[in-house]
Amino acid sequence: MALIVQKYGGSSVADAESIKRVAKRIVDTRRAGHDVVVAVSAMGDTTDELLDLAHQVAPISAPRELDMLLSSGERISMALLAMAIHSMGFEARSFTGSQAGMITDATHGAARIVDVTPIRLREALDEGAIVIVAGFQGFNRDTRDITTLGRGGSDTTAVALAAALEADVCEIYSDVDGIYTADPRVVPQARKLDVVSSEEMLELAANGAKVLYIRAVEYARRHGVMINARSTFSSGQGTFVLSPGMTAPASIARTQESPMEEPIVAGVATDLSQAKITVIGVPDVPGKAAEIFKIVAKSGANVDMIVQNVSAAATGRTDISFTLPKTDASLALRALAAEQVDVGFESLVHDDQIGKLSVVGAGMRTHSGVSATLFEALSTAGVNIEMISTSEIRISVVVRGDDLAGAARVVHTAYGLDGDTEAVVYAGTGR
Amino acid sequence: MALIVQKYGGSSVADAESIKRVAKRIVDTRRAGHDVVVAVSAMGDTTDELLDLAHQVAPISAPRELDMLLSSGERISMALLAMAIHSMGFEARSFTGSQAGMITDATHGAARIVDVTPIRLREALDEGAIVIVAGFQGFNRDTRDITTLGRGGSDTTAVALAAALEADVCEIYSDVDGIYTADPRVVPQARKLDVVSSEEMLELAANGAKVLYIRAVEYARRHGVMINARSTFSSGQGTFVLSPGMTAPASIARTQESPMEEPIVAGVATDLSQAKITVIGVPDVPGKAAEIFKIVAKSGANVDMIVQNVSAAATGRTDISFTLPKTDASLALRALAAEQVDVGFESLVHDDQIGKLSVVGAGMRTHSGVSATLFEALSTAGVNIEMISTSEIRISVVVRGDDLAGAARVVHTAYGLDGDTEAVVYAGTGR
Repeated sequence: MALIVQKYGGSSVADAESIKRVAKRIVDTRRAGHDVVVAVSAMGDTTDELLDLAHQVAPISAPRELDMLLSSGERISMALLAMAIHSMGFEARSFTGSQAGMITDATHGAARIVDVTPIRLREALDEGAIVIVAGFQGFNRDTRDITTLGRGGSDTTAVALAAALEADVCEIYSDVDGIYTADPRVVPQARKLDVVSSEEMLELAANGAKVLYIRAVEYARRHGVMINARSTFSSGQGTFVLSPGMTAPASIARTQESPMEEPIVAGVATDLSQAKITVIGVPDVPGKAAEIFKIVAKSGANVDMIVQNVSAAATGRTDISFTLPKTDASLALRALAAEQVDVGFESLVHDDQIGKLSVVGAGMRTHSGVSATLFEALSTAGVNIEMISTSEIRISVVVRGDDLAGAARVVHTAYGLDGDTEAVVYAGTGR
Repeated sequence: MALIVQKYGGSSVADAESIKRVAKRIVDTRRAGHDVVVAVSAMGDTTDELLDLAHQVAPISAPRELDMLLSSGERISMALLAMAIHSMGFEARSFTGSQAGMITDATHGAARIVDVTPIRLREALDEGAIVIVAGFQGFNRDTRDITTLGRGGSDTTAVALAAALEADVCEIYSDVDGIYTADPRVVPQARKLDVVSSEEMLELAANGAKVLYIRAVEYARRHGVMINARSTFSSGQGTFVLSPGMTAPASIARTQESPMEEPIVAGVATDLSQAKITVIGVPDVPGKAAEIFKIVAKSGANVDMIVQNVSAAATGRTDISFTLPKTDASLALRALAAEQVDVGFESLVHDDQIGKLSVVGAGMRTHSGVSATLFEALSTAGVNIEMISTSEIRISVVVRGDDLAGAARVVHTAYGLDGDTEAVVYAGTGR
């Protein structure tokens, strides 16, 4: 008998029928002899509808009240889910973030978990009940107010509960059946991974893979929680995200082709959500880069890759390019333009037609030639590389947006990742 | 500067526009220099929609979970209302029933208030904030679970807050502009009352008047809270419900026609929601009535009027008639039929085409001839009386349902209650 935490997203509980299907899945887990704690998101588009209402009554929402408003969405889904389980003859109890002991700081809209005290959940489990917890929400002890955790909050709730309750596994359900070697909509030959390391998962998620939120994976890694990403709509085993020291369940280990050897590359991530800004004609004197990125940071924009060209000796000037989310570009451009005279650069170029391709694999640490394979594959395919950035287990390149899908396919093949069959692609995005 | 508690029902906050209108009304009260605490219901049909969802996922809802579900409705409306007030430049904070210190027993779905500890509301008021509280909901200390107060719960929340905070007045807003001498849809000449005593209001509410809930009026009477029933959609002063020892505000006293003299009759209430059951051929021996009403009570039906006919000496048998809500009739009929042999009655007659007319007035205590006027008016109008019941300040008669509206009009005229103009009738019912 294990303790299993399950998380169901909004699309898994979008209507009464979906809720009943999820209830059955939970009851099946209970019937198999396990204790079950469920973190649930708001139904379907509830959160967007509430945000829309908020916008209608007030152009700018008071953060405390917005959290009070949004947190009601999960109360609805969790109570309905508990009712559905009840009507199948099993005891179920729902708990708000506050009742579940999800203690956060006071940052409304993006609260960080500071403590988890699941006393009432333990009591309910000891009494044989299935526990349902509102995802996405917490409670601040000082202000005694309700908070929300921000994007991906329900995943984080599930992982934090799994950590606090020392659960055996944290199953994150969505409408995709696991982590793929690439986005199956971009690379039809993508294969589902049975296991992926948490560090690889972090790089994949940070570079465009949408199935799991970085924050939840980080929390799982730090607290030693095993994540199992799987589908609400199929019975597949999904993908296990393993942190150092963890071993995959026996059922998975048996199916792996070469369990003795770690694959060099886990997957290829693609990302069309970034833009590139180039600051042209920056005086090539110490401190200019710092000056520029201080301005960008102050604007609230999140910089990703940075490349500085070699200075042209004749002019004493250089160009600095960086990428950032498209939605942050206008913030950064406005901030830089305002300081043009002080910084002394010549002009700004904004390019939102870029694509980022990342190759991720823990094997890069011990294998040479990984980047050569990437560059060669892109060269053969005639794809021009505009920027390069690397981490210990990742190589990212910026290419033309139009080239991204084709590039992903040739790179996927070059690393021997192609599966024998085309992947099943679901309509949603898993959120 | 006064402390004013205001209650807005679901129809007053049905959509974003309504919420903004209510916010403006609250801000106006604050601008006039008063402290304001607001109890708010769920938006429009939210509660019904949530009940519908509950029914879709489970035929029978777990009571604890149903309260968790339903209580989310007020969280939405109160947060939106607080946001709307914020955007008008005023500080507003919303509180759940639990945060507001609304402590109840553990009876889910029909919890009774056992204590009100509005510590956080006091703090917020002291800091100059407008306070918004979720109506209809509370919190049980032993189970630490959320409860709901049942029908009319938000009115009760408002009155209980007014009592605990020693507010100067509890304004209950709806879509009708006060208490009328009769239902204006039945009696077009009905007049709005400037004041009504709480005991009269209780009788009116118990006998068909729908503007205020009995439970809230009882709470107000017991705790000395002055209620002011008024309209969200007009600026009229509404009706003040006064308990013993209270005097109407000066602005109202001046407008009353004869402030020195209490009117004999406050109003005429009509009720088409009852049915009549007659138990025919009951053995005329002691204890039979007790036997019958024990059976009815056990069935869960709520008996209102009871009449026992004079026994026919020849047969040694009598008939017993009683009225009860139409919705309870089948419960009572089934329970009685099951015990027919034991009780020894001959048959049951069920009549759901009745109407109840009640004349209510504190002046009945000191004036004779009040009932004579009623009977004479009905006789002149050719309306047959089927049952009569009286309290200290009320006379009720049961007539044919089809006769009820006509009877109400002639009785209204007979007691000199008719106004000079026709009452303005709103579409809704004020709930």
